[in-house]
Amino acid sequence: MPKIKFLPQNIEIEAEDPAPLLEAARLAGVSVETPCGGKGVCRKCLVKILDGKVEVQAGSYRNHKENHVLICQANIINEPVTVEILAGLYGEEGQFDDLSTPVYLNNSETDALIKHVDLTIAKPALLDGFSDFDRLEKALKNKIDFEVLKIALDVLHDLPDKIRTPHDIKIFYYIDAGILNIADISGGAESTENYGIAIDIGTTTVTLWLIDLYTGEIKSRKTDYNAQIECGLDVITRINYAQKHLEELRDRVIRTINNLIKIVCAENNMDCKKIRAAAIAGNTVMTHLFLGICPEYIRLEPYTPAFYKLPLFNAGELLLDINKNAPVKIAPAVGSYVGGDITSSALSTPLISDKSEEIILFFDIGTNGEILLGNNEFILGCACSAGPAFEGGGIEFGMRASRGAIDGFKIDNGEIHITTIGDAPPVGICGSGIIAVAAEMFRHKIIDAAGRFTNKMPDRIKKDKKPHKFYITEQISISEADIDNLIRAKGAMFSACRTLLNNTGLTLEDINKIYIAGSFGKYLNITDAVTIGLFPDVGKDKIIYIGNSSIAGAYQTLMSGSKREKEREIAERITYIDLSGEAGYMDEYLAALFIPHTDLNAGGFSE
Amino acid sequence: MPKIKFLPQNIEIEAEDPAPLLEAARLAGVSVETPCGGKGVCRKCLVKILDGKVEVQAGSYRNHKENHVLICQANIINEPVTVEILAGLYGEEGQFDDLSTPVYLNNSETDALIKHVDLTIAKPALLDGFSDFDRLEKALKNKIDFEVLKIALDVLHDLPDKIRTPHDIKIFYYIDAGILNIADISGGAESTENYGIAIDIGTTTVTLWLIDLYTGEIKSRKTDYNAQIECGLDVITRINYAQKHLEELRDRVIRTINNLIKIVCAENNMDCKKIRAAAIAGNTVMTHLFLGICPEYIRLEPYTPAFYKLPLFNAGELLLDINKNAPVKIAPAVGSYVGGDITSSALSTPLISDKSEEIILFFDIGTNGEILLGNNEFILGCACSAGPAFEGGGIEFGMRASRGAIDGFKIDNGEIHITTIGDAPPVGICGSGIIAVAAEMFRHKIIDAAGRFTNKMPDRIKKDKKPHKFYITEQISISEADIDNLIRAKGAMFSACRTLLNNTGLTLEDINKIYIAGSFGKYLNITDAVTIGLFPDVGKDKIIYIGNSSIAGAYQTLMSGSKREKEREIAERITYIDLSGEAGYMDEYLAALFIPHTDLNAGGFSE
Repeated sequence: MPKIKFLPQNIEIEAEDPAPLLEAARLAGVSVETPCGGKGVCRKCLVKILDGKVEVQAGSYRNHKENHVLICQANIINEPVTVEILAGLYGEEGQFDDLSTPVYLNNSETDALIKHVDLTIAKPALLDGFSDFDRLEKALKNKIDFEVLKIALDVLHDLPDKIRTPHDIKIFYYIDAGILNIADISGGAESTENYGIAIDIGTTTVTLWLIDLYTGEIKSRKTDYNAQIECGLDVITRINYAQKHLEELRDRVIRTINNLIKIVCAENNMDCKKIRAAAIAGNTVMTHLFLGICPEYIRLEPYTPAFYKLPLFNAGELLLDINKNAPVKIAPAVGSYVGGDITSSALSTPLISDKSEEIILFFDIGTNGEILLGNNEFILGCACSAGPAFEGGGIEFGMRASRGAIDGFKIDNGEIHITTIGDAPPVGICGSGIIAVAAEMFRHKIIDAAGRFTNKMPDRIKKDKKPHKFYITEQISISEADIDNLIRAKGAMFSACRTLLNNTGLTLEDINKIYIAGSFGKYLNITDAVTIGLFPDVGKDKIIYIGNSSIAGAYQTLMSGSKREKEREIAERITYIDLSGEAGYMDEYLAALFIPHTDLNAGGFSE
Repeated sequence: MPKIKFLPQNIEIEAEDPAPLLEAARLAGVSVETPCGGKGVCRKCLVKILDGKVEVQAGSYRNHKENHVLICQANIINEPVTVEILAGLYGEEGQFDDLSTPVYLNNSETDALIKHVDLTIAKPALLDGFSDFDRLEKALKNKIDFEVLKIALDVLHDLPDKIRTPHDIKIFYYIDAGILNIADISGGAESTENYGIAIDIGTTTVTLWLIDLYTGEIKSRKTDYNAQIECGLDVITRINYAQKHLEELRDRVIRTINNLIKIVCAENNMDCKKIRAAAIAGNTVMTHLFLGICPEYIRLEPYTPAFYKLPLFNAGELLLDINKNAPVKIAPAVGSYVGGDITSSALSTPLISDKSEEIILFFDIGTNGEILLGNNEFILGCACSAGPAFEGGGIEFGMRASRGAIDGFKIDNGEIHITTIGDAPPVGICGSGIIAVAAEMFRHKIIDAAGRFTNKMPDRIKKDKKPHKFYITEQISISEADIDNLIRAKGAMFSACRTLLNNTGLTLEDINKIYIAGSFGKYLNITDAVTIGLFPDVGKDKIIYIGNSSIAGAYQTLMSGSKREKEREIAERITYIDLSGEAGYMDEYLAALFIPHTDLNAGGFSE
């Protein structure tokens, strides 16, 4: 059993021999992106062999000079190996999730989804007529007001012993529709640790926070690729795939979540049964798939989902590897394409949540883009399909915003300067990098308003075959096709924004704040985004990046009853606009397929 | 794969070869009693090989003349076999359960635990803002008054398709603590059959009724031995066994129940998922074991059980093979040894249930005996350990009341006349048979008041070694030890009855009715029972046999909301008397160890 060490995570495991290296990585809990399903074609899973040897499948891509191989094509031979993951997510705490994400939770209103109470239970007495359960109920009634008591069967199993320990016991419970549900009891010398998890299920990535429910402290934040990406990059492909493979999609996202749970539990050296509540936010298709409900009717007129809001479930029935009696709350959706992630985001976005009079625009940028526009009097919400360009998809050298991704690009005196995430050797370009490259090329007139290469910097451009390519480094290029993808993505977002404004009669001058959500925003240069026309140019000081606001909202609802109430209100306040039903949207879209916009003076926009 | 045919059930299966014959019987759903756990020592599993050959383990008991073998010691060889089960329960419909058991259910108050409603669901419409779940909720609100709606996850899975079928849908739901829970939906052309089960979990036998919930019709009644009997014959032995083997005991009773479910479903050619509610009654120890809760504290001072009454559970969490969302109701217990079976029995006993002024005595006779005494103003309840004699246990040739058991015994002019259940050749003596034998022997002065053999009918008696035996047939005898067991059993019951009377200051003259419950009563001759002193002699017309009143009560609570309410009331009305805490009980018991009683005139009793 050779030892395999993974860097930068610095995790070492003993692997079977022979075995695929990818399997060893998964065993080690090291995430590797394999969007092509491990077929060796997408080249996204590049790793560097720092020490030792692996066997690489004949004909598969490798770079002998850098000692780069595709992990999906490599097999362990009987030899220890040290592997550097070039594009992994784990091990770089907070790389995806901004640790400074504002959470806006007032501690005084802490009222977690699962609550706890310490009880002293009367000793059993001869012929007192009280069973263990009766005495528990009596003790609870002395402390809490409730009508009906329910107890999970496995808790009942342990009740007789726990109730007879000489110590007080701690009851973990939640109140749902007037019923007090006992989810767990810790008795005697048992640990009374109590954790919750907040989960954002994105089409591309899944983020999980582990939270100490006593203090609200976020103990761990982890992100992994949604294992569904091997079945399609966007929600429409997933819906189609679900027709025949619903169970597979459900399994994949549950596996992703359970793996994250395993990792945060290991990191905090704790038993996953101490996680006693979960708050989940995801787009409408993702929550359908997570629950195992086929989302096909979302795609078919009249585009009706199975649910918007749902009662609480138990973790056990949702197959989550936490305490099986943990209540699981799923953020309510607003429309087929404005899901619980947006409700949850709106909750954690202060001016929306606080019903400010100021008019705000909210952009959640990802494979699907969602936009909110409103204030205390109204909120409109819509969604558009931007495609995967912002997440590095559909771009030849595109990759997600992880180690080795080019995220900055400057041209100075004809010299190209790049920056990469983690200052690692460049392995591709992430979404914000593509925007930076396109914006700088546009500023230097290397591309025109239609995204075509001009005759500037010809030594960097290869026009021998289509699509024409601009070489950023010796290995990594961006093509006219890539730029076209980017323009279509930003055009979809921008025209959606224009359509919402048209619906309300507002202009950009009326906007007080623009909030940018989504993990991609962290590396984004706002000026670049305005340059290419992704965001309207309202002045840089009005644009605020708020990170993964969806999970921030999930966190708030996990911790606070008033936030849960507010989230329900917000879901009702948002009016869903279906862009496919809006007459003007397609015109706006076609008009927006230029950098920055067709008509530089239209609607008050300026370059 | 040789064919194995079982009679009288007339079930034929293809069996593996070689394989134990017992396994083939279980595969065929044919119940065989193996209280010794298949070790070949108790000789209760005698079968007759009518055709073909089996291999019998060397040294094990067999009767070559009758071609009797112990099924637990027989193996199938490569040959078809026809086996006659001599002491089985199945295949003799209603043998255990009196089909004429009065059920006392007024059809007009039918209000089953699971209800149904037909709904016409509005079609989905573009941008109406309603999900499938919202439209379902709206349609339900038009018909039913409720605050909170919950839906089982697997029902939600099918909702989108079912709600789009051109037909109306039928919702199966139950209301629990103000929450409307949707357990199932049938849509389109799906069958709308709706069944419930009532289950009586006895220490020795488990009885199950399948009920059509639309009409209340009892479609099937089946009884099988509780598979726990291999782990001990009485509740105390079970409690001890549970210390180390709780899961095994739970598995065994669940297996017994699920096997009965399989059989009634096969008999009615239906899918077990159409069973959408269950009402269960059992003694306190049995319900603890069924739920997987260790009953050890019931046996230890202060004898406190984990629960008396519990909220509803789902069939899925209780591992019952019916619709997993079916609500399962467990009858509330009164004391550690006066369980939900007695509450349930009291419910189906009209004078108790109807709060009559008449004073009644209620006897449930089994391994544990329970007695109720009371009227509309009070009810006292107590339990005593009669031991297994009434069920044929602890008696050399004892057997349960099934095919081939001697249940009647007369001596006429020195000639012995016996009757057997099913008119089959005698294979043993059941509880009522033992009472008949003892009573007739006492009447003919073959035994004295202490149960010792006199010098009558010496040719039938063998005194060469202890215990002395009286031969009923050439093969089957009853010994002084057997009669001693019987006297101790009846003494326990009778003295319990005396103690209750002493507690109230009532005498036998005050009793208006005596109800006898328990499967054993069906074959019981009341005169014989009075002769040996099991029941007080209040006049035959005051004694009524009501059969398995426990399952009758479970049936009523399955079908009627007002009965469920009444059962809760009854559980509160019964005052539990712990005989072990009653000073006079032991004196009464010692005094009752004679036939019929020590003091023929004590307390108004007469022979």
